[in-house]
This record gives sequence, C-alpha cells and structure tokens, in this order.
Amino acid sequence: MSLINTIVVAGGTHGNERTGVRIVQKWMEHPECYNTLCTSAKVDLVLSNPEAMRLNRRYRDHDLNRAFSQTCLDVAVEPQQYEFRRARELNRIYGPKGPDTRTDLLLDIHNTGANMGLCLILSTRDPFTMKASAVLTQEFKNAWIYYQPEERCESPYFGTVARADVCIEIGPQPHGTLNAAIFEESEKLVKRYLELAEEWNRGELQKRPAVKVEVYTQLRDMGYPKPQGGGPIQAMIHPDLLGRDYCELKKGDKLFRTFDGADILYEGEADGRESVWPIFINEPAYYEKDIAMSLTVKSVEEW
Amino acid sequence: MSLINTIVVAGGTHGNERTGVRIVQKWMEHPECYNTLCTSAKVDLVLSNPEAMRLNRRYRDHDLNRAFSQTCLDVAVEPQQYEFRRARELNRIYGPKGPDTRTDLLLDIHNTGANMGLCLILSTRDPFTMKASAVLTQEFKNAWIYYQPEERCESPYFGTVARADVCIEIGPQPHGTLNAAIFEESEKLVKRYLELAEEWNRGELQKRPAVKVEVYTQLRDMGYPKPQGGGPIQAMIHPDLLGRDYCELKKGDKLFRTFDGADILYEGEADGRESVWPIFINEPAYYEKDIAMSLTVKSVEEW
Repeated sequence: MSLINTIVVAGGTHGNERTGVRIVQKWMEHPECYNTLCTSAKVDLVLSNPEAMRLNRRYRDHDLNRAFSQTCLDVAVEPQQYEFRRARELNRIYGPKGPDTRTDLLLDIHNTGANMGLCLILSTRDPFTMKASAVLTQEFKNAWIYYQPEERCESPYFGTVARADVCIEIGPQPHGTLNAAIFEESEKLVKRYLELAEEWNRGELQKRPAVKVEVYTQLRDMGYPKPQGGGPIQAMIHPDLLGRDYCELKKGDKLFRTFDGADILYEGEADGRESVWPIFINEPAYYEKDIAMSLTVKSVEEW
Repeated sequence: MSLINTIVVAGGTHGNERTGVRIVQKWMEHPECYNTLCTSAKVDLVLSNPEAMRLNRRYRDHDLNRAFSQTCLDVAVEPQQYEFRRARELNRIYGPKGPDTRTDLLLDIHNTGANMGLCLILSTRDPFTMKASAVLTQEFKNAWIYYQPEERCESPYFGTVARADVCIEIGPQPHGTLNAAIFEESEKLVKRYLELAEEWNRGELQKRPAVKVEVYTQLRDMGYPKPQGGGPIQAMIHPDLLGRDYCELKKGDKLFRTFDGADILYEGEADGRESVWPIFINEPAYYEKDIAMSLTVKSVEEW
C-alpha cells in the first residue's frame, strides 16, 4: 500500500460483540478520542449491524461477516435477509469491493469467547498491516498474529471491501458482555493502528527495523465429533486443551472428552503433520458452524 | 417435606445453557445413568424449552423462567408468546403450582457466565433442600448456597411449580458452550441430589448432624449506571470486582469503571449497611434486565 487515505473503524459487525460497539459509540460521541491520531487520512466510524446490536445477537437473519463475497454482493435481486441487504449497503458506502474501493484500511473490532487475547487477523500480506501488527505484538504483551490468507474476491468478511484490513478478535469475553480491562486495552490498540497509519503516511513506519514475529497461519477448521449421518455433538473440548489457544497440540495429546468421560486424542493431520496450534477453541458462535477450533501452523518471520 | 415421591430434573429452561441440556439428553438416552439413584421416587426428565434450544438462545419470545407466576399461568386467554404457552403446559404436566402439585422436588439446571461455581439456589426454607444442599457444600469445594426467598405463588421461576426446588446455576460458562469439567462436576452434583433424596426417604438424611454453611441471602439487584431518563449503560464492572462473586464488597471499594476510565465506588446501602456480597457479576443474560450483579448478605448457619 502506498498512502493510506481512508480508514474505516467498524464495531458491531456482530451485534453482541460489545467491545467494538462501545469503542465506536464512544468515539462517535467524542471525536477528540481519535480525530487527531491520523490527520493524514479520513477516518470513518461505522456500527456495522445495528439491527443485531438492537437484538443483542450475533446477527438477525444471517452472519453479516459471511455476506461480503462478490457472489453475495452481486446477486441480481435485492435479498430478503437483513444482513445481505446491509452488506450491499456497506459495500456501496465503503467499497465497492475490488481495486476501486474507497477504503484503504478497515479495522473491524470483534470479540471471541475463546482465550485469544488481542488477535490481529491479517487476510493478505499487505505491507502496512504486517508492519503495524508486528509493532503491536511488541507493544501489547497479549497481541498475536493470525494469518488467514483469503482469496479476496470470494472472502465473506467485511474487511475485504477495503484494500487492506485487520480483523481484531479480542477475548476471552462472553458475547453480550463488556470487560473493562479488555475495553481499555482494545481501545489503546485501535488508537495505535491509527497512529501507525500516520507514521506510515510520513514514510517512517517503513524504516523501522524488521522485528521477529510469531505468525499463526490458518491450516483448517476442526469440527466436534458427531455421529455418522449427523446429529448433536458427541464430545466437548478436553479440559487439558480448553483455554490453551496458540499452544502446540501434538499427535497423541488430549483433544475432546465425550459425555461418558472418555478421552479422544489428536491423531495428527492427514498429510502426516504431527503438530498444530489451535485457536478459537470453544468459541460460542462457532458451535452452529460446527467449528470446535481453528488449527494453525506456527512460524517465526521477520516483518 | 415428608416423603419425596416425585422428582423432576430439568435442563434447557434457557435454551443456550447447555450443561443442563446435555445432562438431560444423556440421561434420556441412557436411563441407567440415573434410574437406580432414587428408586423410592418417580424421577422425570424434561427439556423445558426445546424451541429456545433449537434457536440456541435463552428464549424465543419471553424468558421462560420468568413465566411461572400464578398471574401468568392464570391468564384467561391462551397467550401468543411461545414461552407463556410452554409455561402453562409444563405447569399442567408437572404442577399445578400450589398445594396440589404432582411434583415434590424440581432440580432445574442452569448456566451462568459469572464466576459462580456450583450455586445452589433455594427459594424456600424447605428441610430437604436445605439439608441436601448443606451436605453438597461439604462434598463439592466449589458449591455455594444462595437463598432467594420467594413468595411462591407469584414467583416466576419454573422450580416453583413443585413443592420444593433447587435452581442449580453453574459457571463460569459462556452461554451456548459446553465445558467438560463443568459438565462432569454438574452431573455428579445432580446425581448426588437424587441419592440424598433416597437417603431422605429412608429417614437417614434427617439424622445427619447439622453442618455449618455459609448462606448468601438475596438483598437486591444492582443495575449498571445509566443516564437520567435512560439510555445505554455508562460503565462496566470494575476490573477489581470482575470474577469476585461471593467476595465481600465494602463501602469505598471499586464497583464500576466508566468508558473514560473513571472509577465508581460502592457507596453502601441506603439503610446504612456497608458490606455486601455480590453474585451474578456481569452475567450476560442480565444486561437486558439491567442487572449488573445481585447483592447478597452472608451469614453462617447450622443446617
């Protein structure tokens, strides 16, 4: 990315993830909280899913953050479901998705019930988001980088209407609640992204020496054990694994516990890989998506 | 209570509180899990709110566990809202609420996002539920007694359709999730209630020596700070208080933190009381009820 001219800070893409909702609401009421941090860019604030916020639910009809693929946005008839309509509206205002988008950088603030700390999710190897996120892993002891490479056109995430984006996943925080310590840390982090965008626009961030970062790269999602042919889940996250996001899980380690108290062990990957690093362990919103956790591969890089 | 002839074990009174849902589902599939524990009584299992379970929400139209007051049950016309209809149905099957109820004991299994451990909520000073719960505080290191005296006729809780009841609130567990350690501990606890009912029916539980118990008695609910005339909450639970359910909160202690980072201190009660013991701190489901926590008074009794 060359200059960052337009930034969008989004909260409430999921209506019951209150950290982002309240940061954005606070900043809307008190623009002085953010409007001096990156004066070289136009900074917009948005509450992405007001209807879900009103309901205190993740979404009303469909997960908004799964509604931004080009296919969804291009459907010829106006969709019935609220979130598909809202996605098109957001795309008209902040996109359009693709090379002509109005938005250079989108920061989308989410919460997770998993023990993820400040998880910085990058969907592309964009120079600014990489460099800024690397700096933030040094400034925030609980910040982590999750690299989830996306075919941008078909990616369903709101952030992909912009040229570059960071999806900030903050936890553990039960959906529908606030946590004061998490709120304050998150607000600081988002402010730092704006300051680092300013530093980027001055050409200074680029000159900082590279730093070593741990990068957790998406491998695959893992579902809960289910009976052949479908049905309710047959096991829970194993107590030894719960809360251990970003920790190594080795072949033979305890993975699930059945309702009868039996342990299910991790068998390794089909390709022979014997170690993975799970994240989003036991995320409440992913039960309906049949995701018990997302498996990643850890590497150390210089960014 | 003299003999306990009929017991109901309920899960899913709130559809997204999965510990109770899965215990009841497991026992329905495997009656051998429970049907030898209290052979002197008829033990029924019920999934109270299947519609909310299907939606993975607390309720569909109205909180089912606020729909059992005699006034609600007596409304002349058949109510439109699902939960009011379901409450009447459950009352027909397991009640009718009042002295002629079919059910001697109702165990209703709930989850809370608050750090409540195994919270045994008693709504009356019933000899069996007091004695059994006292025994369980000795057997389970994380079991607590919350005494919430209810005018039974107008109480809105499901348990009050029975002659005596325990509402078992288990946390911390984000709604919509399972936690294997909590599942196993909770199942053990519910089984022990059945065994103790058997012991009661043999006349033996009554003869056990009294034990000292800490009793947390309901004082009042405390809301979040809000602007005059209403509006969104103006502060969050203070980080020093979060997770400290059952701990003493003294006048002058930190209570809330505003979004600007200011501390709000506990000012004591209107009647001059300077210490309280909060529970249900930051419970997700109570944001909509404007309850930040429930204040209790701690006492030590011999039960």
